Amino acid sequence: MPHARRRAALRELARAADLDALLVTDLVNVRYLTGFTGSNAAVLVHTGDGDRDERGTRLVTDGRYRTQAAAEVPDLPVTIERACANEAAAAASRDGVGRLGFESAHVTVEAHLALTGAAENLELVRAPDLVQRLRVVKDEQEVATLRAACAAADAALADLIAAGGLRPGRTEREVAADLEQRMREHGADGPAFESIIAAGAHSAIPHHRPTRVELRRGDLVKLDFGALRDGYHSDMTRTVVLGPPADWQREIYQLVATAQAAGRAALVAGAELSGIDAAARGVVTEAGRGVEFCHGLGHGVGLQIHEAPPLAASADGRLAIGMTVTVEPGVYLAGRGGVRIEDTLVVRPHGPELLTRTDRELLAL
Amino acid sequence: MPHARRRAALRELARAADLDALLVTDLVNVRYLTGFTGSNAAVLVHTGDGDRDERGTRLVTDGRYRTQAAAEVPDLPVTIERACANEAAAAASRDGVGRLGFESAHVTVEAHLALTGAAENLELVRAPDLVQRLRVVKDEQEVATLRAACAAADAALADLIAAGGLRPGRTEREVAADLEQRMREHGADGPAFESIIAAGAHSAIPHHRPTRVELRRGDLVKLDFGALRDGYHSDMTRTVVLGPPADWQREIYQLVATAQAAGRAALVAGAELSGIDAAARGVVTEAGRGVEFCHGLGHGVGLQIHEAPPLAASADGRLAIGMTVTVEPGVYLAGRGGVRIEDTLVVRPHGPELLTRTDRELLAL
Repeated sequence: MPHARRRAALRELARAADLDALLVTDLVNVRYLTGFTGSNAAVLVHTGDGDRDERGTRLVTDGRYRTQAAAEVPDLPVTIERACANEAAAAASRDGVGRLGFESAHVTVEAHLALTGAAENLELVRAPDLVQRLRVVKDEQEVATLRAACAAADAALADLIAAGGLRPGRTEREVAADLEQRMREHGADGPAFESIIAAGAHSAIPHHRPTRVELRRGDLVKLDFGALRDGYHSDMTRTVVLGPPADWQREIYQLVATAQAAGRAALVAGAELSGIDAAARGVVTEAGRGVEFCHGLGHGVGLQIHEAPPLAASADGRLAIGMTVTVEPGVYLAGRGGVRIEDTLVVRPHGPELLTRTDRELLAL
Repeated sequence: MPHARRRAALRELARAADLDALLVTDLVNVRYLTGFTGSNAAVLVHTGDGDRDERGTRLVTDGRYRTQAAAEVPDLPVTIERACANEAAAAASRDGVGRLGFESAHVTVEAHLALTGAAENLELVRAPDLVQRLRVVKDEQEVATLRAACAAADAALADLIAAGGLRPGRTEREVAADLEQRMREHGADGPAFESIIAAGAHSAIPHHRPTRVELRRGDLVKLDFGALRDGYHSDMTRTVVLGPPADWQREIYQLVATAQAAGRAALVAGAELSGIDAAARGVVTEAGRGVEFCHGLGHGVGLQIHEAPPLAASADGRLAIGMTVTVEPGVYLAGRGGVRIEDTLVVRPHGPELLTRTDRELLAL
C-alpha cells in the first residue's frame, strides 16, 4: 500500500516540525496520500504515537464522491461535508490537536481566515511543503507509471511521423488533435497539458498555442506534448524541419542539441540545481545566443506537469536519486523560428535514465 | 475594446473600496481584464483620476511570453519579470500607492508573505472578489462566445447519436474521445472539462470518470460534457437509455425532467439563488427522492467551468440579468443507475434563454 507508506513518512516529517496533525488541502497531495481523485477533499493526518498509528487520520469530501471515496480510499474513514477543509480543522479541534499544520503555499488568505474560525482552541502553523518534500523523490511504481506515459508519447510521435502527419497544408490544431488521439490509442488517459504545436515563426514563441495556421515547406515545427497516465505527466519536445534544413536552422538545432546533452550529463545525484541549468546554458551563452534561451532549463514532473525541483539559475537545493525532471533548452529567433529539445529523465545512482526515448537527431521531413 | 471597458469598471469598484490600486493575480481575471492567456502573469490596475485614466496600469509576465503579451495586450505596457506578483507590488510601491488591494481568495498565505516583503511602505488590503463581481454578469460578446461553445456541444452530440456512436459494446472512454473529437470538428478548442460518460451503475455516480467498461443494452448512459471556445466553457448533461426503458428508468427520468423544468422556470432576474435551488429540489423531495439529489442545482459558467453564482440551498444573493448558469438536477440510485439533465442558460429580462438546445425527452437508442 504506497498510500499508507507515504502517510507514515509524512507523520515523521510532521513530528519533526512539532505538529500534532497536518491538514492537507492541495488535491494533488490528497491523491498522493490516499489515492482519492475527486475535485473536493481534505485529509487530516494525525502525527500519532508511531508510524503505523493512523488513529484520527481521515478523508473529508462531499456527497458527490461518496461512492468514489469508498472505492478509492478503502483504508481510511471518510467524512461527507462540502466545506472539507473547515470540517477537517474542526475535527482536529475536537480531537484535541494543539498545533495543526496547514499547507500555506496552497491555502489562500481567505481560506485561512475561514479555517481560523472553524478550528477553535488550536494553533494553525504554516507548513508549506511537507508533502512536496516526499513527492519530489519518486518510488519505483511512480517511475513505472511515468515511463508508461512517456512511452505513449514516444509511440504517438512515431506513428504520426510514419503516417505522414507532419506535412505542409495541415494546421497546427490538426496536428495537435492527431497527436493527442494517437497518445490515447497508446494507453494515455489524455494529453498531459495543452499540446504546443508551433510551425514557422510560431516556433520562436516558447509557449505557443496551436492555431489554424498551416504548416509550410521550410518550417521548423516544434512539438511540445505529453501523455497523462494514472495521474502522471510525461513531457517531451522535438523540433523537426519540413524539407531540407537551412543553414541557420541547422546551426541553432545543433546548438540546442549540444546544450541539451550537456544538461542531461549534468543530472548527477548531489549536483546543485542551479549548476545543472548552468551546464546547458553555458553552451548557449558561449555561442552568443544566451539571450535567446529565455527560460529555465527544466522542472520536476510527476503528479503535476510542473513541480519541484526547478532546474533554473535561481534554484536552491541539490538533485537526489529518484527525482524525475525535464531538460529542455531552447533557442528562439523572433520572427524566424526556434528549436527546443526536451526529455523526461529519472536520476539514478550512476546517472540519468531517459524515460522519453525518441531520437534527437534533426529530422528533415 | 472590452478589456479597457472592464478595467474602467474595475477602477470604479476599487475606488469604492478605497483602494489606490488593485493587484490582479488570478490568471482568469488577468485574461478577463487584458486578453492575456499565458500561464504566469499579474496586472496592476491603478485607481487613477478617472475611468479612462490608465496611468500606471501594466501587465507583468515572464520572458517566455514576451511575443505573446505584445500581441494579446497591445494597449498596456508589459514588464518582463518571472516573479510577476512581487514585481507588480514593488511597482505599486514605487508609484506611491498607499492602499494596494490583493485577491485574497486567490493569493496563498505564503505568497502574501512574499508580497509583504516585496511591497514596502504600502498597506496590502484584502479584496477577494472585485473582478468576480464584474465577471458574474456577461456582456453580449461573452454570451455569443458561450452560445458558440454550446452549439459545438449540441452538434457533437447530434452527430454522435446519428452515427450510432452510443451503442452496446463501446467503452465509456471511446464515447468520450469520440464526442470530444466531434466537438473539435464543430469549432471547439477542446473539451471544457473531463467529459463524464457513465453507463449502467456508473450513471449513479454523479462525477464519474470514463473507464474501459462497455455500454450494455438496458443501460442508462449519462453524458456530461462541454466545449471550450476562446476561453469560455459550455456545460450540458443528457441521459439516454440503450433500448426500451424500464419503468424505474422512466420514472426517475420524468422526475428529473420535471425538476429541471421547474429550475429553469425559476431563473427570473431578482430571484434569490437559494430559491431557485428550492424550486427544483422541491419537486424531487415531494416525490420522496430528495436524498438522492445530493448536490446543488447549478453554478455560474464562463471563463471557468464553475464560477459565481452558485445555485444552491446555502447560496446568498440574487440572480441578475446577464448571468449565465447551469441547471442540473439529478437523481442517483446507487448500484442501479442515475439521471441528470443539465442546460446552460443566460438570464434575460423576460426569462432565461437556453444556450444548450438539445432535446430533453427521454431518448431510447
